[in-house]
Amino acid sequence: MTDAAFPPDRLLATLSERLGARYVRTDPEGLASHLVEARGLYRGDALAVVAPGTTEEVAFTMRACAEARVPVVAQGGNTGLVGGGVPFGGIVLSLNRLTRLRAVDPLGASITVEAGMTVAEVQAAADAAGMLFPLAWAADGTARIGGGLATNAGGLAVLAYGNARDLVLGLEVVLADGRVWNGLKALRKNNAGYDLKHLFVGSEGTLGLITAATLKLFPKPLSKSVGFVGLPSAQAALALFARLRSGADRGLTAFEYMPRFGLEMVLRHGTDVRPPLAGSHDAYALVELSSPHPGSEARAALEGLLSEAMEAGLVQDAVIGGSAAQDAALWRLRELLPEVQKAEGGSIKHDVSLPLSRLADFLDEASAACEAEMPGLRPCPFGHFGDGNIHFNLTQPVGMEKAAFLSQWSRFNRIVHAIVERMDGSIAAEHGIGLIKRDELARTADPVGLDLMRRLKAALDPRDLLNPGKVVALSDDPPPALPV
Amino acid sequence: MTDAAFPPDRLLATLSERLGARYVRTDPEGLASHLVEARGLYRGDALAVVAPGTTEEVAFTMRACAEARVPVVAQGGNTGLVGGGVPFGGIVLSLNRLTRLRAVDPLGASITVEAGMTVAEVQAAADAAGMLFPLAWAADGTARIGGGLATNAGGLAVLAYGNARDLVLGLEVVLADGRVWNGLKALRKNNAGYDLKHLFVGSEGTLGLITAATLKLFPKPLSKSVGFVGLPSAQAALALFARLRSGADRGLTAFEYMPRFGLEMVLRHGTDVRPPLAGSHDAYALVELSSPHPGSEARAALEGLLSEAMEAGLVQDAVIGGSAAQDAALWRLRELLPEVQKAEGGSIKHDVSLPLSRLADFLDEASAACEAEMPGLRPCPFGHFGDGNIHFNLTQPVGMEKAAFLSQWSRFNRIVHAIVERMDGSIAAEHGIGLIKRDELARTADPVGLDLMRRLKAALDPRDLLNPGKVVALSDDPPPALPV
Repeated sequence: MTDAAFPPDRLLATLSERLGARYVRTDPEGLASHLVEARGLYRGDALAVVAPGTTEEVAFTMRACAEARVPVVAQGGNTGLVGGGVPFGGIVLSLNRLTRLRAVDPLGASITVEAGMTVAEVQAAADAAGMLFPLAWAADGTARIGGGLATNAGGLAVLAYGNARDLVLGLEVVLADGRVWNGLKALRKNNAGYDLKHLFVGSEGTLGLITAATLKLFPKPLSKSVGFVGLPSAQAALALFARLRSGADRGLTAFEYMPRFGLEMVLRHGTDVRPPLAGSHDAYALVELSSPHPGSEARAALEGLLSEAMEAGLVQDAVIGGSAAQDAALWRLRELLPEVQKAEGGSIKHDVSLPLSRLADFLDEASAACEAEMPGLRPCPFGHFGDGNIHFNLTQPVGMEKAAFLSQWSRFNRIVHAIVERMDGSIAAEHGIGLIKRDELARTADPVGLDLMRRLKAALDPRDLLNPGKVVALSDDPPPALPV
Repeated sequence: MTDAAFPPDRLLATLSERLGARYVRTDPEGLASHLVEARGLYRGDALAVVAPGTTEEVAFTMRACAEARVPVVAQGGNTGLVGGGVPFGGIVLSLNRLTRLRAVDPLGASITVEAGMTVAEVQAAADAAGMLFPLAWAADGTARIGGGLATNAGGLAVLAYGNARDLVLGLEVVLADGRVWNGLKALRKNNAGYDLKHLFVGSEGTLGLITAATLKLFPKPLSKSVGFVGLPSAQAALALFARLRSGADRGLTAFEYMPRFGLEMVLRHGTDVRPPLAGSHDAYALVELSSPHPGSEARAALEGLLSEAMEAGLVQDAVIGGSAAQDAALWRLRELLPEVQKAEGGSIKHDVSLPLSRLADFLDEASAACEAEMPGLRPCPFGHFGDGNIHFNLTQPVGMEKAAFLSQWSRFNRIVHAIVERMDGSIAAEHGIGLIKRDELARTADPVGLDLMRRLKAALDPRDLLNPGKVVALSDDPPPALPV
């Protein structure tokens, strides 16, 4: 893996000299947290964790590693869920010291940040300038913006504002040979040649290292209204979604879904929660309308739309938050779901997306197929319904041994992904491919598209030094076995 | 240019046999309209104009051309403004027979169309399904959607809905070797590997041939309000824009700009026009607010925002259309501008974008620089102010000979582009690079970015068969001299 003429020791000495020895950690304590991923599914190894402090130092580090033929795995907050940030040899390049807010321009509605700022810090910097940076998800206080861009993160505001990709105006990227591409433009329109930024966003550190980004800001909504809705079915949820989208357009800022079993788990295991509705329903939606105006406009619009949907028989019951605290309490019912699942045992997970018009069919069909496969299994599909993105999670049957259930991971993946494929969906909606879905991507992707991906990888990283073996494999090495 | 073992005659015979002889035109009449571009700036030549009728036939044609080493220039409506569709040898591949509406899904808010539908036909198909396809510009009745995507067209609805790129969910593309990438997904979220669609959008036919696309649809706004505003300066226009954006967010669906001289030309040479305001002003804005609700909401919001801006001294006078006909009449004042310019003699043109916060500074500075360079020259910067995109056009001095003025094209390009570069703008905002800006791109682009573009071109089209010499040149051949 390394060039005989440039042994690892010499590389690390070179890096220590330039960056300072404290930023080139080889001790077990310094390495520990960088070798495993968030859910503990993979454990890797690395020569060192290297933490440059500037773009120039990132470029120096990458150049030195390229000369030494040492692979580089970029890491930010290490909150990814697909094993994309786990090193298997080479160095971990932490971008967490690149934390400068380079510029914020409320008039131009843009902000330029370094990769190591947390997503929440970017939100806060925008807020301080009187603007909104909408990218947000549960781990956004830990996740770094560079990682959010490298994985094209989704989250809670995609419906109205798009994925991470859609928020990018420009990027600064260190390439596999250590050169720096300065593409930090704050432009809404730019057709000056091929769009390079979209190549790096979502490439999970396999094509380049994002060191800084210029991102879109938006006016802050001045009022919001949040509703929690009880529905007879996923089909009714889809019909309700279409009505709210027509009635509010981009004022519809959230449409999240959970099934009866999901709310049951939240109420059973969550702290400080209470039933939002008097009765129980097969499906629930958390909906949010936003307005650029202060006052009750959003609330009045939501009340009107939900009343009409109730008269049409789509909505069985609904509650609308009357204050910021009540809104937050309703949101919390949705946000607790990933956490409370753990109390019910093992979960086999999928992060899939479907064409919106197939979403309810998918939920019905995939739930039935999994329940038929294993009686007692409890589907808990939830998530970003309005984006067509469902975390199709399967909770183990009551009383089954967790390990025995999780050993069936691949079996259920095949069942669920087959339905996703038939309905022209995606097996990787917002969490990416990383390692955990690499071979599933190779199996399911359009072969011409897969070949294009490999050609792009070979063109931009011919020595396979950037996060090798992730997303698309240039070699035939199998991925490390999943420990579950 | 062609392989001795596969002479052009044999290629054309092969294509005639498969497609039918009437779709392989080599006669001067069949070729004529395909060899020149819209403004007559370039005249090329071609072996034939080939018009396949299906994606399979496009793939067959491309495969045959690849085997024969014959270059392929894709054409749709041939309305481009940068010489991107002009052939210099090889064949013209017309996509105009691929006109099938493959699917429209109002619930899923998507439409799948073939490349040869006009943009207006896509709009009409969306409208018939009760939805909005927002991409629109002057030539949209002639321009084909494939060309609109290949050039990442901008136009009149970018402010609220984005460029052509932002409307794409999926693509079907014939590659340089004749294989077909089927990426026609109708998904709002898809992180299954690298994003390939953004590579082809805006690549001007140099990386692949877009044969079909799945595009986003939106709810139709149910009411609109259009205003025509007189302003003391470009700086006031920028301040007004910021207020409208804060007050209406994505409800602000247009903010177009023209200078005093622009409206003067429209009123002087336009038919069926009358002064929108009693007095005359240094700058004008055409603004539009839209609402998902019927009724007067948009109008009331616009009236309120313009009143506040008037009290703040930003707006000198304003008129709001009271009917669809009045709205259209106000829009027409803006839409006539490119046409009426011709009556005042030659125009030297720029299609630039700036960070929004630099836009007014740019207008002041670039206008002053050009006027100082040639006394009597009349700047007419107009366009999509809210996108930071200005068509910085320079009308010749009164009485000067047109040809003498146009011979100064490159000189003014250098002056204007130098200011654009200093302000971190783009020299190609919405019309693309094509041939006319190819060497200007090579001169001004970040060298690392330019090298990346060349690597992408070499990776996807190693034989340089797709629209060779456009956007980025793999060879050192100079482009054909501009005839002006």
